[in-house]
Amino acid sequence: MFTQQDKTAINELRCLCADVVQTPKSGHPGAPIGMSPMAYVLFTKFMRFSSKNPEWMARDRFVLSSGHASALLYSMLHLCGYDYSIEDLKKFRTLHSKTPGHPERVEYSNGHKNPGIEVTTGPLGQGLANAVGMAIAMDAMKPYDSENMVVDKEARVYAICGDGCLQEGVASEACSLAGTKKLKNLIVLYDDNSITIDGRTSLSFAESVKGRFEAYGWNVLEVKDGNNDIQAIYDAINAAKQSDKPTLIKVTTIIGYGAEKQDSHSVHGSPLGPEGCQYLKKAYGLPENESFRISQETRNIFKQVIEKNEQSYQVWQQKFEQCAYKQEILDRFSFIQNMSVKSLIEKITPAVQKFNEENKGKATRQSSQAAIQLLHDTVLAKYMIIGSADLAPSCLTTIKNLNPAQYIYFGVREMGMCAISNGISAYGGFVPFDATFLVFFNYCMGAIRVGAISKLQTIHVFTHDSIFLGEDGGTHQPIETLAQIRAMIGVYDWRPCDCQETLGAYIGAAGRKSQHVMALTRQNVNLLNSNLEKTAEHGAYVIYENEAAKFTLLSSGSEVETCINVAKKLNLRVVSMPSFKLFSEQSKTYKQEVLKFNRENIIAVEPYVSFGLERFAEHVISIETYGASANAKDLAKFYGMDQEGIEKSVKAIMQ
Amino acid sequence: MFTQQDKTAINELRCLCADVVQTPKSGHPGAPIGMSPMAYVLFTKFMRFSSKNPEWMARDRFVLSSGHASALLYSMLHLCGYDYSIEDLKKFRTLHSKTPGHPERVEYSNGHKNPGIEVTTGPLGQGLANAVGMAIAMDAMKPYDSENMVVDKEARVYAICGDGCLQEGVASEACSLAGTKKLKNLIVLYDDNSITIDGRTSLSFAESVKGRFEAYGWNVLEVKDGNNDIQAIYDAINAAKQSDKPTLIKVTTIIGYGAEKQDSHSVHGSPLGPEGCQYLKKAYGLPENESFRISQETRNIFKQVIEKNEQSYQVWQQKFEQCAYKQEILDRFSFIQNMSVKSLIEKITPAVQKFNEENKGKATRQSSQAAIQLLHDTVLAKYMIIGSADLAPSCLTTIKNLNPAQYIYFGVREMGMCAISNGISAYGGFVPFDATFLVFFNYCMGAIRVGAISKLQTIHVFTHDSIFLGEDGGTHQPIETLAQIRAMIGVYDWRPCDCQETLGAYIGAAGRKSQHVMALTRQNVNLLNSNLEKTAEHGAYVIYENEAAKFTLLSSGSEVETCINVAKKLNLRVVSMPSFKLFSEQSKTYKQEVLKFNRENIIAVEPYVSFGLERFAEHVISIETYGASANAKDLAKFYGMDQEGIEKSVKAIMQ
Repeated sequence: MFTQQDKTAINELRCLCADVVQTPKSGHPGAPIGMSPMAYVLFTKFMRFSSKNPEWMARDRFVLSSGHASALLYSMLHLCGYDYSIEDLKKFRTLHSKTPGHPERVEYSNGHKNPGIEVTTGPLGQGLANAVGMAIAMDAMKPYDSENMVVDKEARVYAICGDGCLQEGVASEACSLAGTKKLKNLIVLYDDNSITIDGRTSLSFAESVKGRFEAYGWNVLEVKDGNNDIQAIYDAINAAKQSDKPTLIKVTTIIGYGAEKQDSHSVHGSPLGPEGCQYLKKAYGLPENESFRISQETRNIFKQVIEKNEQSYQVWQQKFEQCAYKQEILDRFSFIQNMSVKSLIEKITPAVQKFNEENKGKATRQSSQAAIQLLHDTVLAKYMIIGSADLAPSCLTTIKNLNPAQYIYFGVREMGMCAISNGISAYGGFVPFDATFLVFFNYCMGAIRVGAISKLQTIHVFTHDSIFLGEDGGTHQPIETLAQIRAMIGVYDWRPCDCQETLGAYIGAAGRKSQHVMALTRQNVNLLNSNLEKTAEHGAYVIYENEAAKFTLLSSGSEVETCINVAKKLNLRVVSMPSFKLFSEQSKTYKQEVLKFNRENIIAVEPYVSFGLERFAEHVISIETYGASANAKDLAKFYGMDQEGIEKSVKAIMQ
Repeated sequence: MFTQQDKTAINELRCLCADVVQTPKSGHPGAPIGMSPMAYVLFTKFMRFSSKNPEWMARDRFVLSSGHASALLYSMLHLCGYDYSIEDLKKFRTLHSKTPGHPERVEYSNGHKNPGIEVTTGPLGQGLANAVGMAIAMDAMKPYDSENMVVDKEARVYAICGDGCLQEGVASEACSLAGTKKLKNLIVLYDDNSITIDGRTSLSFAESVKGRFEAYGWNVLEVKDGNNDIQAIYDAINAAKQSDKPTLIKVTTIIGYGAEKQDSHSVHGSPLGPEGCQYLKKAYGLPENESFRISQETRNIFKQVIEKNEQSYQVWQQKFEQCAYKQEILDRFSFIQNMSVKSLIEKITPAVQKFNEENKGKATRQSSQAAIQLLHDTVLAKYMIIGSADLAPSCLTTIKNLNPAQYIYFGVREMGMCAISNGISAYGGFVPFDATFLVFFNYCMGAIRVGAISKLQTIHVFTHDSIFLGEDGGTHQPIETLAQIRAMIGVYDWRPCDCQETLGAYIGAAGRKSQHVMALTRQNVNLLNSNLEKTAEHGAYVIYENEAAKFTLLSSGSEVETCINVAKKLNLRVVSMPSFKLFSEQSKTYKQEVLKFNRENIIAVEPYVSFGLERFAEHVISIETYGASANAKDLAKFYGMDQEGIEKSVKAIMQ
């Protein structure tokens, strides 16, 4: 099947990668050179794409989990006819280029996207988890796709990863789950080159990856000479497509194969240098002094690949025109993209009164369940994928009438869960809701960050907020967590004070293409005079006005009611701030109107650290130690977070 | 070897655990009941301890990784003669008790510790990583222990974990490393009860744990009836002690064995109720209506266990009195504990001038390497354990003359690394230094938090701080990270501006029993007129005074020099703040003296988000988006963080 011309094309690809990295004099040439054969076989023989329509819904998905090998991906996308010119490749790792150091899924305000980049990768291990998420989303699509227009029997998620990814815990979590779920649509090529930055993998990574993945329930195949034996790579991918399990293909390669310093970590993270590039080209019998050279023969190969794919796309397009549920599918992909806070408020408002009657007085984790149910019943039934990291009975993520393909038992795997959610969101057509205790934000943060960078929407249903989690103690009580969420770009904090604000928070979250972290109570809270629209649209508002007041109490969540009680006694006004981040984004005028006074006359009250609240308040009634194990009532008293304690602190401030 | 009386003792232990959880009407009875047999065999037949001297340096270590099973640990410690009375057990999960919901390693200011609690557990997976760290520390002790006084051939680290721990990525990371390092002193009992909170493990965890651990290079043994076959448990632990690999003993049990709702998640997280406790006692033929009952026969068994152990301790004590290096070892354990900033400054000051000459103009990651070398050469040679998550050539963690047993190649496993560091620190006698890029704080945070709660000292050598990491782009550029560190309790941020502050930061960190995160530059910085003592002791100080100034620039790290240049042009003064956290802790007077002006006339300058800097400054020149891929110079210009940009922003503020 393969000819000498294919080998030449691969060698040209290797040299192109070296040139790409050489241009900015920084980057990673070794992995792209070593992985060129597997990428070549994958893209020329298996991947189904339309480079003219990179968002083609029925395309295969590709994830370069070892994102530092970006030069390979950009080069391949260039050859496959995506909108990456040689000039773009020459702008590798320079400001505002389409070819940043690591692949970035970016959607600019003008809708432009880096084509062919399904997910942002670089932080190791997460790409694999994203791929698992995409594979799950593919399966979840099937009940809505009886004619297999989006997901046919050939549809696959492909990923390439290296040793680094496989050492990361997040990859372990996701791959173990993939095995449990028998995700046969997932095929991972593992670049087994025995080299990491510190030296040979034997220093830190002596495990049998094959044994481990077989233990996970994967099909594991091996290609012994991944440098030259492209037929073996082809055969392995072909065999993988027949498997009823996810497949890991262990492709043994030499990092920087053909380079002077091949098989050492010195080709990993530094360009080869001009002489090194010449050496490489000479080794492959290519013109030493030409850079960015792709022969006409190689161009022809890719021309055929592009044409073959475009034909498939055309055939699909014709079939799609006849598809009975064409509009429904189109709507699916646009719906999530276009869902706005305004439209959601409109759709949900008629149900609010009943919702409040049913949920008043309940814990916000309970109103959360009801809010998710309401979102499901009114708007999102077809679009939501829900799951929790083995805390469904605590986080209350199970709802009625949900299609079972849209529920995920994530297991005790918080970071894997969030990275899988990113993959689901990147796949499109779904909005993921995942769940754990709020304190375990600290396990999840690495994945939430990448989701935020990529503007992927996930709603994190994090419950058991604050010390009022109670008896489980300090390890389980978030103290610094709200501040850490608020410090992030592209992540909204939501700490609603009652059921109505909870519903408002979900509307605010569902209507924004960002990461959203709910901070929901374990303990009951009363329905206050809260405001759903202002919650969703502005993040803070006056919940208890008092013209005579000289101070404003600024609070959130379960402390809002206590603050209102204190305000009534001490002649104050109260602002409820369900989302610090959203409130921070409001106009200066709105903020002034809500806060009314200068910083000196604002007292913030939260059972969290004061850090960050100083943006709005000179005075903060806070908790500046880790929590303790006790019931909520005792904790409230001890930390001065009951009415008596807050009143006392407020009085001391006002004196 | 075992008699009916042992079985009765185990049954009484099960019922005691149920009673403990019943008292506060909250907690986890199922795992303690199910794991009672393995804990009984381990503590009565293998564990070497002195409950009268719980800090005995030669003791075996025990980690309950599934920390929610704390009732079992407290009950066992009570029976083994540790300072836990029945009254303490009755205070389970109540404020200020010694028996919080999860085991907490706490050292109060009066030196009191919860005896027998080696590490804080609860956040799943981390306990296993802590155990790996302890096993590594044991091995690192050997070169200093020729007579095997601290670590003899019987010394082991034992851990018990459940399904939850094994699903967590952090455990995967640590256990893979343990296999690579052939940590034969590590024995883990895995409570394989097939139940998690969401239901049966088959929902999310269908992998072969045995296969996976064998792939890691572990010895895996199995006990098929962990409910009754205590001889098999004994034989397995005995066999494990003969292995030249770490051992996982898969003990199949039924959660809540004997309880009415055994083998279901309903016995996991809720007490059995009064009737449930009665049912359990009846099932075991014990008096139904007695609570906290331990028969005299059982007491006698434990009396013998305690006596046997005390005799061993006495034998050891006599031998230790004769040991040639007795004082050296005693000093080792007290040295780290007593190391103070003051004493370190004294010891290091004579070398500072030479240090500055050699390191001026270098990147702070380079001065960091020199500072660690200097700490090694002058003070810490015997005490430091260093390693990086596969970034030694970037984070520069390799130093000369370090004992190889004190260097760890962690592999690409950031959270595992930090949790292993916690284990090393908890073992005692060593201070761990670990390393990665600063942005990957977001992978590490869950472990750093538990270290902070436990007041375990680790120095995190995190390099490539800020956007000035450059071409690797937004995924690798920390923007929110400093704020997230500063928001934490018990964690110090250190962002030194030059080589001298870098050395000061290490002194400040080495002298404080906390978690410390260094934020070190990739790019070069000049030696400024910086102050080592003030860095280490106060966290901020005036680096450029100007009596005529109307504004203070408050900055850190690589921006301090730029701020000084701007201050010279615009008639300002500059405060260098290498540690926000340490500065926040200073007296009001010191802070006022340093800052000089009110908030309105302070301008903070950092290439990070403004969040949190508002504590000191009304105005913040910051970066409120994720970074981009480009060289440092282009980034500085684009983000307004070069001199021109900062000058322009400052002028706009002052107008």
